[in-house]
Amino acid sequence: MAAKKEKPIILITNDDDITSKGIRSLVEAVSDLGTVVVVAPDSPQSGMGHAITIGSPLRMNKMDLFGNIEAWQTSGTPVDCVKLAVDKILHRKPDLCLSGINHGANHSINVIYSGTMSAAMEASIEGIPSIGFSLLDYDYDADFTAAKQTVHKIVTAVLNKKMEKHFLLNVNIPALPPEKIKGIKICKQAYAKYEEDFAERLDPHGKKYYWLTGEFKNFDKARDTDVWALEHGFVSVVPVQFDLTNYTLKKQLEKSNLFK
Amino acid sequence: MAAKKEKPIILITNDDDITSKGIRSLVEAVSDLGTVVVVAPDSPQSGMGHAITIGSPLRMNKMDLFGNIEAWQTSGTPVDCVKLAVDKILHRKPDLCLSGINHGANHSINVIYSGTMSAAMEASIEGIPSIGFSLLDYDYDADFTAAKQTVHKIVTAVLNKKMEKHFLLNVNIPALPPEKIKGIKICKQAYAKYEEDFAERLDPHGKKYYWLTGEFKNFDKARDTDVWALEHGFVSVVPVQFDLTNYTLKKQLEKSNLFK
Repeated sequence: MAAKKEKPIILITNDDDITSKGIRSLVEAVSDLGTVVVVAPDSPQSGMGHAITIGSPLRMNKMDLFGNIEAWQTSGTPVDCVKLAVDKILHRKPDLCLSGINHGANHSINVIYSGTMSAAMEASIEGIPSIGFSLLDYDYDADFTAAKQTVHKIVTAVLNKKMEKHFLLNVNIPALPPEKIKGIKICKQAYAKYEEDFAERLDPHGKKYYWLTGEFKNFDKARDTDVWALEHGFVSVVPVQFDLTNYTLKKQLEKSNLFK
Repeated sequence: MAAKKEKPIILITNDDDITSKGIRSLVEAVSDLGTVVVVAPDSPQSGMGHAITIGSPLRMNKMDLFGNIEAWQTSGTPVDCVKLAVDKILHRKPDLCLSGINHGANHSINVIYSGTMSAAMEASIEGIPSIGFSLLDYDYDADFTAAKQTVHKIVTAVLNKKMEKHFLLNVNIPALPPEKIKGIKICKQAYAKYEEDFAERLDPHGKKYYWLTGEFKNFDKARDTDVWALEHGFVSVVPVQFDLTNYTLKKQLEKSNLFK
């Protein structure tokens, strides 16, 4: 007879805040797959990148938001949440960390600005397999039906096949009904980004201030990018790493004697 | 007769704030190499990672801090500073962006948390060759003598050899007098990180709060890492890229049919 398998511990966080529909959808999508613990920010943290809180202390409060699922809100960033969860709440590494589901895209270069992906990356650095999920719909009340099905499929596959400890995925889901989604495509990060343009305004005292705006542009013509996949109705899955070394340039510079 | 060469425009920013000794040292180190323009935060932004300001507007003020060198302070993050500089101050891309000199190390995994490196990476994404500089001394009044010499040497070499537009370096300088520095070493990013431990305190009302603390640990035994170089008295130069795709895992997943 097979030994009774212990349920995996799944840490869930996000960057939109603990009350968002996206994190609730993520909890619902995987609650049958393991013991879920939620540790998430008490206020929106979009665009926080890999920010950590050094100069001020952090607060944590236990919340009753997800029925019988343990949940904590913190005053920190998404990265702080992962650190607090491991050190002060779980007192161990979870078996898997999930971040999201983000209200809005985190494909291409946005992996770098995204609080959702930074939380997932933090877990991966700590040696916890991790996945960030984003839905291409910024609406507060977005429809997460297809996203939940995608999450369940991917998390089931990842839990069934033991992944190496730094395993990290960036998953983006098109804003389509389930029957319109063509499948899941393994991709690379597109070179696509916002072309910034600051909107200039005058305050009531006649002084200028600036709002960040921008137009999204895809400079990458390859067909194996996340942007291509999403534009063609696929879920994009980009395997991500935190070693930022440019090994090609490293070899060139080693040969060049440029700094001798 | 050779045509008169136009001086390169060098954008300088940092994450410690515009009044720090580190940015002043960087300006002094390269002011003979081009037309320098400073755009930097009006308050310390360490640990801000690749944060950008989406939910609130930004302010800019022209400052008289560096003699005849144009300088602006902004209310934004280091990444915001680069965006504002290109779009609202220079109205063009500078020829080179320099970030720092940071008061403290940004080697190994810290490249991800570092505001200094995020500003440099932002410039690289925009197609501006860029270098981040950090000195391994957190002191407000650190001695930047050796750092300035290193900066001058590296920036001279980079300006003399036209670099491709996404060229990006993470340079860390040991806290040593110039004669003790053994040279400049091209390195990879070490897998070394802080093992977190939150210090728990009680506020005057009896409620808990937490300070992020941690011990730095090097898990990487390779001899071509930035941590190895710095421990052995070298300046470390890590070529950095912003494509975070894990191509090895991409190939594995494509073969595996894991998500079919």
